[in-house]
Amino acid sequence: METGGDHVSGAEQTPDWPFHSSSFYQPCGCADGVGNYDNSNNVTIPGPPDSIAQNSLRQSWEMNYQEAAIYLQEGENNDKFYTHPRSPRALSAYLFAHNHLFYLMELLTGALLMLLSLSEAPAVPSLRLDVYVHATLELLALVMVAFELCMKLRWLGFHTFIRHKRTMVKACVLLIQFVEAIVVLIRQTSHLRVTRALRPIFLVDCRYCGAVRRNLRQIFQSLPPFIDILLLLLFFMIIFAILGFCLFSTNPADHYFNTLENSIVSLFVLLTTANFPDVMMPAYSRNRWSCVFFIVYLSIELYFIMNLLLAVVFDTFNGVEKVKFKSLLLHKRSAIEHAFQLLVSRQRPDGVSLKQFDGLLRFYRPRMSARDRFLTFKALNQSGTPVLSLQDFYKIYEVMGLKWKARRSGEHWFDDLPHTAFLIFKGINLVVKSKAFQYAIYIVVAVNGVWILVETNMLKSDFSWSQQVPWNYIVFLTIYGVEVLLKITGLGPVAYFSSGWNLFDFSVTVFAFLGLIALAFQMEPFYFIVVLRPLQLLRLFKIKQRYRNVLDTMFELFPRMASLGLTLIIFYYSFAIVGMEFFADVIYPNCCNTSTVADAYRQINKTIGNRTVLDEGYYYLNNFNNILSSFVTLFELTVVNNWYITMEGVTSQTSHWSRLYFMTFYIVTMVVMTIIVAFILDAFVFRMNYSRKNREPLDDPEDEKGIVFEAEVTRAEALQTLELYKHTLAGTNISSLQEMCVAMERSGHSSLVFLGRRSRTKSDLSMKMYEEEIQEWYEEYSRTNLPQLDSPLDRDLDSPDPTQSIN
Amino acid sequence: METGGDHVSGAEQTPDWPFHSSSFYQPCGCADGVGNYDNSNNVTIPGPPDSIAQNSLRQSWEMNYQEAAIYLQEGENNDKFYTHPRSPRALSAYLFAHNHLFYLMELLTGALLMLLSLSEAPAVPSLRLDVYVHATLELLALVMVAFELCMKLRWLGFHTFIRHKRTMVKACVLLIQFVEAIVVLIRQTSHLRVTRALRPIFLVDCRYCGAVRRNLRQIFQSLPPFIDILLLLLFFMIIFAILGFCLFSTNPADHYFNTLENSIVSLFVLLTTANFPDVMMPAYSRNRWSCVFFIVYLSIELYFIMNLLLAVVFDTFNGVEKVKFKSLLLHKRSAIEHAFQLLVSRQRPDGVSLKQFDGLLRFYRPRMSARDRFLTFKALNQSGTPVLSLQDFYKIYEVMGLKWKARRSGEHWFDDLPHTAFLIFKGINLVVKSKAFQYAIYIVVAVNGVWILVETNMLKSDFSWSQQVPWNYIVFLTIYGVEVLLKITGLGPVAYFSSGWNLFDFSVTVFAFLGLIALAFQMEPFYFIVVLRPLQLLRLFKIKQRYRNVLDTMFELFPRMASLGLTLIIFYYSFAIVGMEFFADVIYPNCCNTSTVADAYRQINKTIGNRTVLDEGYYYLNNFNNILSSFVTLFELTVVNNWYITMEGVTSQTSHWSRLYFMTFYIVTMVVMTIIVAFILDAFVFRMNYSRKNREPLDDPEDEKGIVFEAEVTRAEALQTLELYKHTLAGTNISSLQEMCVAMERSGHSSLVFLGRRSRTKSDLSMKMYEEEIQEWYEEYSRTNLPQLDSPLDRDLDSPDPTQSIN
Repeated sequence: METGGDHVSGAEQTPDWPFHSSSFYQPCGCADGVGNYDNSNNVTIPGPPDSIAQNSLRQSWEMNYQEAAIYLQEGENNDKFYTHPRSPRALSAYLFAHNHLFYLMELLTGALLMLLSLSEAPAVPSLRLDVYVHATLELLALVMVAFELCMKLRWLGFHTFIRHKRTMVKACVLLIQFVEAIVVLIRQTSHLRVTRALRPIFLVDCRYCGAVRRNLRQIFQSLPPFIDILLLLLFFMIIFAILGFCLFSTNPADHYFNTLENSIVSLFVLLTTANFPDVMMPAYSRNRWSCVFFIVYLSIELYFIMNLLLAVVFDTFNGVEKVKFKSLLLHKRSAIEHAFQLLVSRQRPDGVSLKQFDGLLRFYRPRMSARDRFLTFKALNQSGTPVLSLQDFYKIYEVMGLKWKARRSGEHWFDDLPHTAFLIFKGINLVVKSKAFQYAIYIVVAVNGVWILVETNMLKSDFSWSQQVPWNYIVFLTIYGVEVLLKITGLGPVAYFSSGWNLFDFSVTVFAFLGLIALAFQMEPFYFIVVLRPLQLLRLFKIKQRYRNVLDTMFELFPRMASLGLTLIIFYYSFAIVGMEFFADVIYPNCCNTSTVADAYRQINKTIGNRTVLDEGYYYLNNFNNILSSFVTLFELTVVNNWYITMEGVTSQTSHWSRLYFMTFYIVTMVVMTIIVAFILDAFVFRMNYSRKNREPLDDPEDEKGIVFEAEVTRAEALQTLELYKHTLAGTNISSLQEMCVAMERSGHSSLVFLGRRSRTKSDLSMKMYEEEIQEWYEEYSRTNLPQLDSPLDRDLDSPDPTQSIN
Repeated sequence: METGGDHVSGAEQTPDWPFHSSSFYQPCGCADGVGNYDNSNNVTIPGPPDSIAQNSLRQSWEMNYQEAAIYLQEGENNDKFYTHPRSPRALSAYLFAHNHLFYLMELLTGALLMLLSLSEAPAVPSLRLDVYVHATLELLALVMVAFELCMKLRWLGFHTFIRHKRTMVKACVLLIQFVEAIVVLIRQTSHLRVTRALRPIFLVDCRYCGAVRRNLRQIFQSLPPFIDILLLLLFFMIIFAILGFCLFSTNPADHYFNTLENSIVSLFVLLTTANFPDVMMPAYSRNRWSCVFFIVYLSIELYFIMNLLLAVVFDTFNGVEKVKFKSLLLHKRSAIEHAFQLLVSRQRPDGVSLKQFDGLLRFYRPRMSARDRFLTFKALNQSGTPVLSLQDFYKIYEVMGLKWKARRSGEHWFDDLPHTAFLIFKGINLVVKSKAFQYAIYIVVAVNGVWILVETNMLKSDFSWSQQVPWNYIVFLTIYGVEVLLKITGLGPVAYFSSGWNLFDFSVTVFAFLGLIALAFQMEPFYFIVVLRPLQLLRLFKIKQRYRNVLDTMFELFPRMASLGLTLIIFYYSFAIVGMEFFADVIYPNCCNTSTVADAYRQINKTIGNRTVLDEGYYYLNNFNNILSSFVTLFELTVVNNWYITMEGVTSQTSHWSRLYFMTFYIVTMVVMTIIVAFILDAFVFRMNYSRKNREPLDDPEDEKGIVFEAEVTRAEALQTLELYKHTLAGTNISSLQEMCVAMERSGHSSLVFLGRRSRTKSDLSMKMYEEEIQEWYEEYSRTNLPQLDSPLDRDLDSPDPTQSIN
């Protein structure tokens, strides 16, 4: 790394000139050749820098840094470049609308709007608010949304704004909601407000919900083939409904097929299996061969076409995932090229120096310390030249999330302690790491598990928790406590808590401890913690490789799963609103006596012998009386079993058309659920293929699973960098760099290796899976030489072609 | 094709000498070098052939043909080579046990044994037989099985026999069944015969059930990962059962969680969703937040782990499919090499002449005509030399199923008719093939569909079929009849019936016609045909490409689906026997009054107003009283909905341990169903990938979808072949060859092209999908130089290494 030193000698280096200028100060669409300094600020004449010119030059560079950072941000977020800000006014609006505070505001506004339905009539009893209160709150939230939209208008410009479909939809919905909220405020009562079902749009549109938007897009992309197969399904259903009507309507006891409508409804419900043996029974009791009709129907519809649906969605999903990955990858590449053009200077047209890189990062990652910026530069700089080539720069997204740490000379946290302490800790460390210790703990957990099982089995159902703390509870908890303490001291807190499994162990033990306290001090409301005790048994699953693998994959999938769950909740919300508007308060005990499912809604006092027993059907609890009840009801409909009881109950109280709501909901959840299944399938199959393809040693130690970058820093280099920062980048916080120098000084080594780590993402896995194809994509991309993903609008951009300027 | 002529000049060709001799006349295991004629028949001295020697030589060649045919057969059936017959006695046993008559006998014996359970107590009422009748029948069938086993013993030899696991299991089961049948015959009454559940083994072992065996193997291969995940599932279930017991057992109204056992059973049933909202209701009515417990449980178990199960099985399935294909492919290749060695002569060590090839086919495909044998040879012979090289010979399996037809000069069947007739038929042909005609028919079908729907909707439920034939029925049927006639005359019967869709049209129309006759003559029992009318609507699905695709794939999948269905039935059978032995006659109306599901079994007369209504719970129909009822009950358990009603009913009449039966059945069907789903998924995804990969024009005309081989025959060649057959292969039927010569004579062309067609199989698709990998496999295979799939036993075989003898 001898040559690595000269690029930081910023003092004697002639200041770099902006080679490609920022586009902020140019009217959009003007073609700007290489070296054409058509900026509206002072620096228009290239020449030897003087003090003022240098200042302006610095300003101009700052502009470029900022725009490059914006490009990188757009690449990361998959924002299309035609929304790139093109004027200072747009820039300020862009900056205003692109920070976490603004995002948080967006999120909160969206969430507030959705949460309002808790308090609007029909409200959750304990959260009911007066009409004027919730209407005012709604108006406030809507004003916030309007304000956000205005900022977006400023930033995008009117032209782009009205072309941006999502924003336009949002604006329309906003208008409707405004009018309705004002009407509510004037009339002082809620009218039929089905449009509230559109509220999730505000939440979905906010920056943090990008994953939900992607899910929705994926759902819509899977729809065409899905609908085709759905039609096939419905078609067979109607054919069988006609057949069933012809065959069974002559049986007066068979009310499932007595009209064609009933016949269709029965077969629709049969498709979900919810009424299965019952729907067959009247016909079956008359003629045993009638079961053939039902077996054929279920075989075709349930076992064949429904699986076909899954196959089609899975296939589409699979294809879409790859296309998405490709487009995202090329979009990022294009963003990197745009940013690169803004960072190179005339003197060095094919490389980015540390100074420029540092400038970029100051905008792109404001929280990053100077040391980390320097180390990131070192990690990217593979060639050993003082500048980053475009090839180096392509990797910028990979090194962004790294957490840098000096590689320790030893491996244990207690290496610097006095000898006696060292020996003790070393001993603990060895014990903790030994197989014997691990298996001893597993045995304890297993014994504990059996104990809990036996103990619970012997409990009478009329026991109470308010008794003494059982001694076995204390014994096991002590063992777990000692284990945690040993592990923390043996491995060091940092190493201990960096493993997910240890974190799990720790939190379960803490919970158990809290449970013990609750039990000891008889704090009633915390008793539920006591029953979480069996969760400790989950630790047993660390033993087998396949389970570790499954659970690891589960954790990797978690963000995606959460976003899918959120997507589902958004669908639930819309359906819950519609359900509440139409079916609130139609279900109550003993309500549906005219329907075939009256029993399920019955609530009567029965006298058996001399005791009076309440005979409850309980189904009146599955209602749409407020949004929480609606959610539970909708979950029950999702699980499908006995959903027709709710449907028939509501139908008997309203009209036949209510069935449309339930059937639509079934089909929608079927789509979403199929996609969730396809997603889980895809993710696991992908993961397993990946393991097979890369012959990944499945039981590699935990800490080698992430992505690791290395950067070696010599002492001379460190000092030079420090100097550079002191002289040319005054004002930035360089304490982290100073610390690094001090640490190197103290350790006495001439160089220090830093390791940057981050956890592996799906994108990393995909990169490795599609390795060969990625090369092809890149070649194709650089052949066509046009950023594939940009809209035609983007061609107006002034940055010259990157490959041309390099050659 | 000038050079093609000389290989058929059999008259002047010196008779070929067997180069590698058949192994039949050698003691098993003796090493036999190249040219070592250690046969036990007369031909031991190589020399100029005289008449006797030539005769013996021919015998020897016949032996070789037969053995080569056996090798090819073994390759096709995936029989391991260590079961290859090695002595004349073994050969005769082998030949006895390998023909369709014997296979059919095996199948019938197996089926008879299974069908016996229809007549054994508890029997289907109408099929009940006396004990001595069915026991005698059983003994007879078992004697047949024993006889088959003896033949197998003769053919395999004792040593191989006892090593063959499946056969040994079969022998043991046979013994037990024998003993039991005799006991039944002596005691004149059936005892508890759970071993009858093993009867399907006899059916599964027979030759025609190879697909079922493969399925079973695949199921067992998928088991280990399946069981791992299943344990995870059960583990969570137990944890949640403990939690549920702790949380809800204090509620006296909640009988789902009042003991730990009930808690576990409730959660097991909840896993199948069969008791879903009900199990939650008592807790939910007490505290609304208790729904969280159930939502979390279902999310983890049903929506995550169950899908994980599918993912794991799908992945295993995927892998196994490829491995299976590879091993089958290499096994076939090895079989081909063995056969090739037996067919080459000393003079031509690297090629098989027509004479030898013809001899092989006479054994391998006895039904094939001489013309087809000759054409098959031509199709394989790509090099133009008079002999087939090993490379040519490798393709033998691909050309085996071909149906040969001369390429007609014209394309229509009516080309040879007089001019007027030709013009008429040409006109019909053009009309039938026009888009307008097709769409007109679609419109008629659609109108018919709407008509049926409207008509059915307006029918009262008390209509009767014994009325006049409705006029619209006649009109539509006339249109369909005319369409069928036009198509048959326009396309020609052969072309018409070779398309599956046309066959479907035809059969639906014929059915509708039969229905019309039934209606007109008021033949009550055939009315069911009338209700099949709506099936005609299926024709509408020809319009859209995706449906054609789906339905085509469905037809391709059909054999596999059928074998999976049979596999399921075999599981059903075993469970039905066990169920009948333990639960026969325990279920009857009003039987289960002590259980929680008493309502479902109730059958009482209720008086509502002044009418007496029978209030039926019907579930007493779901019993194990005979094997047919058991099958229906098991199907209901497979569909899962409300299965716990049957379980609880039986449990209340017997003991708690009965639940084990039902839970085991659920898990077994879950395995089989998951595999069926995985199979459908895999097949469709494979098909779609195939279409994408090969850029298959998805709407290519029907007749180009098969596999086509071409063979051009000149007149001279045809005559020479005829001569060859006349002189050297006396006794074979050469009329087909003579016909060919006559046809060529008459047509006046100097050469004729024959096309061999067959439909595409999954194997062809796989060949194309794994094209590149197959080359690698072959290379690897020829590098290791040992037939990969042979057991060590096979190395004793005398055929010298194929590659060595070629070079």
